[in-house]
Amino acid sequence: MRIELRSDTFTRPTTEMLHAMMHAEVGDDVFGEDPSVNLLEQKVAALFGKEAALYCPTGTMSNQVAIKVHTQPGDEVICEQQAHVYIYEGGGIAFHSGSQVKTVPGKQGRITAEQVVGAINPDDIHRARTSLVCLENTSNRGGGACYNWEDIVAIRQVCQMNGLRLHLDGARLFNALVATGQTASQYGEVFDSISICLNKGLGCPIGSVLTGSAEFIKKARRVRKVFGGGMRQAGYMAAAGIYALDHHINRLADDHAHAKSIATALAKKDFTGEIMPVETNILIFEVKGRFTAQTLADTLRHYDIHCMAISPTQIRMVTHLDVSAAMIEKLLSVIDGL
Amino acid sequence: MRIELRSDTFTRPTTEMLHAMMHAEVGDDVFGEDPSVNLLEQKVAALFGKEAALYCPTGTMSNQVAIKVHTQPGDEVICEQQAHVYIYEGGGIAFHSGSQVKTVPGKQGRITAEQVVGAINPDDIHRARTSLVCLENTSNRGGGACYNWEDIVAIRQVCQMNGLRLHLDGARLFNALVATGQTASQYGEVFDSISICLNKGLGCPIGSVLTGSAEFIKKARRVRKVFGGGMRQAGYMAAAGIYALDHHINRLADDHAHAKSIATALAKKDFTGEIMPVETNILIFEVKGRFTAQTLADTLRHYDIHCMAISPTQIRMVTHLDVSAAMIEKLLSVIDGL
Amino acid sequence: MRIELRSDTFTRPTTEMLHAMMHAEVGDDVFGEDPSVNLLEQKVAALFGKEAALYCPTGTMSNQVAIKVHTQPGDEVICEQQAHVYIYEGGGIAFHSGSQVKTVPGKQGRITAEQVVGAINPDDIHRARTSLVCLENTSNRGGGACYNWEDIVAIRQVCQMNGLRLHLDGARLFNALVATGQTASQYGEVFDSISICLNKGLGCPIGSVLTGSAEFIKKARRVRKVFGGGMRQAGYMAAAGIYALDHHINRLADDHAHAKSIATALAKKDFTGEIMPVETNILIFEVKGRFTAQTLADTLRHYDIHCMAISPTQIRMVTHLDVSAAMIEKLLSVIDGL
Amino acid sequence: MRIELRSDTFTRPTTEMLHAMMHAEVGDDVFGEDPSVNLLEQKVAALFGKEAALYCPTGTMSNQVAIKVHTQPGDEVICEQQAHVYIYEGGGIAFHSGSQVKTVPGKQGRITAEQVVGAINPDDIHRARTSLVCLENTSNRGGGACYNWEDIVAIRQVCQMNGLRLHLDGARLFNALVATGQTASQYGEVFDSISICLNKGLGCPIGSVLTGSAEFIKKARRVRKVFGGGMRQAGYMAAAGIYALDHHINRLADDHAHAKSIATALAKKDFTGEIMPVETNILIFEVKGRFTAQTLADTLRHYDIHCMAISPTQIRMVTHLDVSAAMIEKLLSVIDGL
Repeated sequence: MRIELRSDTFTRPTTEMLHAMMHAEVGDDVFGEDPSVNLLEQKVAALFGKEAALYCPTGTMSNQVAIKVHTQPGDEVICEQQAHVYIYEGGGIAFHSGSQVKTVPGKQGRITAEQVVGAINPDDIHRARTSLVCLENTSNRGGGACYNWEDIVAIRQVCQMNGLRLHLDGARLFNALVATGQTASQYGEVFDSISICLNKGLGCPIGSVLTGSAEFIKKARRVRKVFGGGMRQAGYMAAAGIYALDHHINRLADDHAHAKSIATALAKKDFTGEIMPVETNILIFEVKGRFTAQTLADTLRHYDIHCMAISPTQIRMVTHLDVSAAMIEKLLSVIDGL
Repeated sequence: MRIELRSDTFTRPTTEMLHAMMHAEVGDDVFGEDPSVNLLEQKVAALFGKEAALYCPTGTMSNQVAIKVHTQPGDEVICEQQAHVYIYEGGGIAFHSGSQVKTVPGKQGRITAEQVVGAINPDDIHRARTSLVCLENTSNRGGGACYNWEDIVAIRQVCQMNGLRLHLDGARLFNALVATGQTASQYGEVFDSISICLNKGLGCPIGSVLTGSAEFIKKARRVRKVFGGGMRQAGYMAAAGIYALDHHINRLADDHAHAKSIATALAKKDFTGEIMPVETNILIFEVKGRFTAQTLADTLRHYDIHCMAISPTQIRMVTHLDVSAAMIEKLLSVIDGL
Repeated sequence: MRIELRSDTFTRPTTEMLHAMMHAEVGDDVFGEDPSVNLLEQKVAALFGKEAALYCPTGTMSNQVAIKVHTQPGDEVICEQQAHVYIYEGGGIAFHSGSQVKTVPGKQGRITAEQVVGAINPDDIHRARTSLVCLENTSNRGGGACYNWEDIVAIRQVCQMNGLRLHLDGARLFNALVATGQTASQYGEVFDSISICLNKGLGCPIGSVLTGSAEFIKKARRVRKVFGGGMRQAGYMAAAGIYALDHHINRLADDHAHAKSIATALAKKDFTGEIMPVETNILIFEVKGRFTAQTLADTLRHYDIHCMAISPTQIRMVTHLDVSAAMIEKLLSVIDGL
Repeated sequence: MRIELRSDTFTRPTTEMLHAMMHAEVGDDVFGEDPSVNLLEQKVAALFGKEAALYCPTGTMSNQVAIKVHTQPGDEVICEQQAHVYIYEGGGIAFHSGSQVKTVPGKQGRITAEQVVGAINPDDIHRARTSLVCLENTSNRGGGACYNWEDIVAIRQVCQMNGLRLHLDGARLFNALVATGQTASQYGEVFDSISICLNKGLGCPIGSVLTGSAEFIKKARRVRKVFGGGMRQAGYMAAAGIYALDHHINRLADDHAHAKSIATALAKKDFTGEIMPVETNILIFEVKGRFTAQTLADTLRHYDIHCMAISPTQIRMVTHLDVSAAMIEKLLSVIDGL
C-alpha cells in the first residue's frame, strides 16, 4: 500500500471519474465545438458568478495568461515573497509579461492591505507601473493557510482606490472554501480573475480553469492560443473536471481532518519541531534531534510512505483523494513507532 | 451521416484508441513519473533517431517552444510566407521569442535553398541576426504539398554552412512520409528539431511531440514549463498517441486516395476552377461561375457535408480517419448532382 | 577635399550651429528642467500641429518607442518590405514590442491603401492582431522617393476604418516637404505619430524628435526612460536641433539639385545601368560593363570620393550639408573622366 | 546663489570642459568613425584593464544593455532590494531581458556573499535560472555607502563557484575609489562588466560607459543599436567624458568633505534624527520635531537651497562639482540659524 504524500497532484481518477471521461461528448474546442469544455467553462463561471471562463491545461498557464491580460510590459506585480506565481512558474511573469515583481513578506503566505499600500509605486517614469496584485489561497508555501475574508476585502479596497487589478491563484481555493465556509460567489465578487486547479484536491488528471469578465476571457482566449494552450478534443479532460466539481468538493474536509490527525501524532514525537498551523490539506513541520528532514523522509519511504523534504529541516505532507482513512491509520501507527 | 471535411483536427478516438486511453498507466509527469508519457516520448525519439522527445498539449506549443530554444531576442527566422508558425500561431515568434520573421514566397508552401541563401542577413548591427529556418511538411496552406527530399537536403546544407538551425513543423509529416516513401529517421538526420501532431491525421484528441537532441529537449522542457505545458497525469492522452503511432500511420494512404477521388469528381464540374495538386489529404480548389466559395460550402452543408471557404473563391476539404469510404461515395454522388 | 557621399549621417555642425550648441541653456531633462530640450520639443510639436513632442538620442529609438506605445505583444505591424524599422533597426519591433511584421512589397518603398487593406488580419485568435501601419517618407531603400499626398490620405482612411494607428518614420521627412511643397502640419493631421531625425539632412550631430498627442507622448516618455533614452543636460544637442529647424530646411533643395546633377552626369556613361528616379537627396544606380559596384566605389575613393556599394551591382550616393557645390563640380568632372 | 543639492546629475560643464567639447574631433560613430568616442572607450577600457568599452547615452542604458547580454528570458537576477537597476530603471530587467529579480535586503545597499548563496535557485524547471548578480557601488539609496573590498571578492567567489556573472552598476564608482583608495583595475579584475556614469560626480552633461571583454562589448554594441543608443557624432559628448576622466576624479574628495561638514552641522540640530553614515557625496538624514522632511526642504528653498524629501521623514542632499566651498559655507550658516 503506497502512501503518496508528496503532493496532491499525484491523484488518479476514480473509477467513476474515468467513466465520465470515457463517455464524454467531445468536439474541436479551437472551433468552440467541444460540449464538455463548454459545459465546464459555463459551470465554473456560474459557480463564481462570473461572465465567462476558460479551460487551460495547467494552473501555471491559467495564472500566467491572467497576468498577461492584466499587465503591460514595464508594469509591476505585487505578491507574497513565496507566491507560486513568483517562485514556481519559471520566472513567467517576466518571461511572458515583461513585468517586474515586488514581493512582500507574508505570514504563512498571506499579505495585508497595509503591505499592498506600501508596495505601490508612485507615478514616476523611473518606477515600474504597479498594476496588479496576486493573492494565493490557500498558500502552498504557507502550509495551506487560508486568508481571513476581511483581509481579502481590505486588499480589494486598496486595489480599487489605486486602480489595481486583483487576481487569485486559487489552485487550492476549494480547500479554503471548505475550511472557512466562504462561497465561490463571494470570491467572484472581489477578484477580477480567479484560476482554479482541477488536478490537485479535486482529483482530475490535468486541467485548470480561469474565470473573469467576458471581455477578460476573450483576451485570455487569444493569449491561451499563442501560449499553445488551445487544445482540440479536450472534452475527455474537461469531463473529469465536471465530475470533480459535482462530487469532490465536500470530501476535501476529510483531507483536512487527515492532515490534522497527522499533526497531532507528530506533535507527540521528540523529533518534531515547530508544526505550521494545519488549516487545510498541507502539513509542514520541522524535524530535529534524531532525524534530519531527509533521513526522516528516507525512513518513511521504507514503509512505502512518500513525503518531501522541502528544506534541510522541513518536511511537507499533503493529503488528498488517494490518501484513504486506512492509509492515515497506517501512517499514524508508523509515526507512533518511530 | 455528418461528413466533416473542415479539418483533420475534428477526428475522435476510435473505440480501440479510447480503450487504450482509459487503461493507460499514469503518474505525475511534472515529476517525470508518467509511464505512458515517458513511453510515448521514447517511441517518438526512437522513430526519428533522436536522443529525446517532449510531449506538449498542442502543435503550436511544440513549434513555439522549439523556436524559443533555437533563438535569442533580436534574431530573425526564415520561413515561407504562409507558414503556420508565422500566420496561425498568434504572432508567437515575436511574442515568445522576440524574434523577427523574414518570409519567402514558396511554391505551394515549399521554399528553396536559393531562397534561404538570399534571405540570410549579413553580420551587421543594423540587421537582425538570422539564426533559424523553419520548414513545414506537408504544407497546410500549400494544399498538403510535400517537399522533394533533395530540396530539404540542399536547405540543410545552406543551414550548416551559415550556422543556422533547421526546425520542421511536421504537423502532418506522417502524411508526407506515407506519400513519398521517405522515413522518419531520414528526417531525424537533417532537422535539428521536429514537431509532430498526434491530433490531425493520427486521430488523437490532443497532443504533439517535439523531438531533438538531449540538450535541446532539456532546454525545451524548461520552456514548456514556463509556457504552462507541464501537465500532470497526461498519460491518458499520451496513450492515444502510442496507439496512433502503432495503428494509424499506414492508413493515411486511404485519406490521400479519398482526397484524390474528390479532386477527380470536382474536375468534371463547370464550377470548378484551378485545383491545387493533391499530394496528401488536403484539397484546395477554386470555385467559379454558378457558385462562390461560400455558396458552394452552404449548398454542401444542406447535405451535412462540411467544408471551409478559405477565401472568396477557394474551398478547402481535408480527409481523415473519420471520413469513411461510404462518406466519400456519398460526397462524390452529391458533387455529381450539383 | 574629402567628398563624403556614403550617408547624410556624416554631417558635422557648421560654425554657427556649434556656437548655438555651446551657448545653450541647459538643465536636467529627466527632471524636465532643460530649457533647450523643452524649447525644441515645443517647436517640433507646433510645427506639426501636435500637442507634444519628445527628444530622443536616435531615430531608431524614436521609431521603436512609438511602435512600443502603439502596439501590444502579439500584434502585427504592416510596413514596406524594405522599411528601415523592419530591416535596419536590429529586429526591434519583435525585440521591444513582441510584435510581428507583415511586409508588403512597395514601389520605391511606397505602399498603397489597397495593399494595406489586403494585409489586415481578420479577427481570429490564430492570427496576430493588426494594429499599426508604418510609412517611411522619404524612403531610404526606395532611393529617397516621396509619397503622393493622396496615397497617404487613402492609407489614413483605411487605418481609420480598421482601427489601426499610423506612424511615420520621417527620418528624411523635411526632404519630402521641400521636394513636394507639402507642409508639416498636413502630416501632423494624418499621422498619429511622426519621428523626425535631426542628424541627417538637418545636419545635427545627434538627435531625433517624436511628436504626437499629449497622451501618446506621456506614454512615450516612460518608454524612453526604460530604453535608457532619458538624458540629463541634453540641451547642448537640442540646441543644434533648434538651429537646424530655423536654418537648414530650405537649403535641402540644394542637396536635391546636387543629386539630380550627379544623375545627369552618370546617365551619359556606358557603365551606368538603371538610375532610380531622383526625387530628393539619395541617388541609387546600377553599375554594369567595365565596373562592378565595388570597383567603381574603389576607383572613386582614389579621388577621395566616398560612396557605398549597397549590392554587387548598385551604388548609393547621398548629398547633404557637407557636400558643397564645389565638391559636386569636382565629382562631375571625375565622372566625366571615367 | 542657487545651491542645488537634489542630485549630482544637475552639474553643468565647466568652461574648460565646454572648450574640450567644442573642439572635439567627431565622426559617425555608428560606422565606428568618431575619434573622440573611440578614444573615450579605449581610455575607460584601459583604466579598468578590460578589453573593450562602449559609450551609451545614459547609465540606465549601459546597465540594461549589460543585463540583456548576461541573461536569457526566464533567468533570475540577484540584487539589493533598493538597487537602482531594480527600482529606478522602469522595470527594465523584466521589460528588456524577460528576467525576474530576486531582491536581498542589504545594509545601506550592500549585500553579502552569504545572502547571494542563499538567493541562488536550485536547478529545477519550476524555478527561474539564476544567472547574474548586480552590485551598486556606491549605493544611491544606501546614502553613498561603499563596499568593503573583501566583501566584493567574496561575492565574486560565490559567482564563480555557481556559474553566475557579476555586473557593477558603478554610476558613482569613482566616488568609491576616491573614498577607499581602491583602483579601477582591481574592479576590472573581479567584475564581468562595469558601467560608469560621466554625468554625475564627473560633471559631464550626458553619458555612460560600459566596459567588459571584447566578446561582451561586441554583443553589447548590437544590443545598444536595437535600444536606439547608436548615436552619430557623439564625440562632442565623449570629449566631455575624456576631460572629466583627466580632471574631475581627484576633486571628488572635496564633495565628500563637503557632505561630511553638512552632516556635522546637522548633527547639532534638534530637528535632526538619524544621519546615515556619510562615506561619499550623499547625505541622507531623518527629520523630526519642528520639521517634516517636506517643511524643512521648503524652508531651505527660501534660501535658494534645493534638496529632496525622499520620504515623509527623510531628506537627501548630494554634493558635486557645482557645489562650491562658498555654497557649503552659506548652507552651514543657514542650518546654524534654523
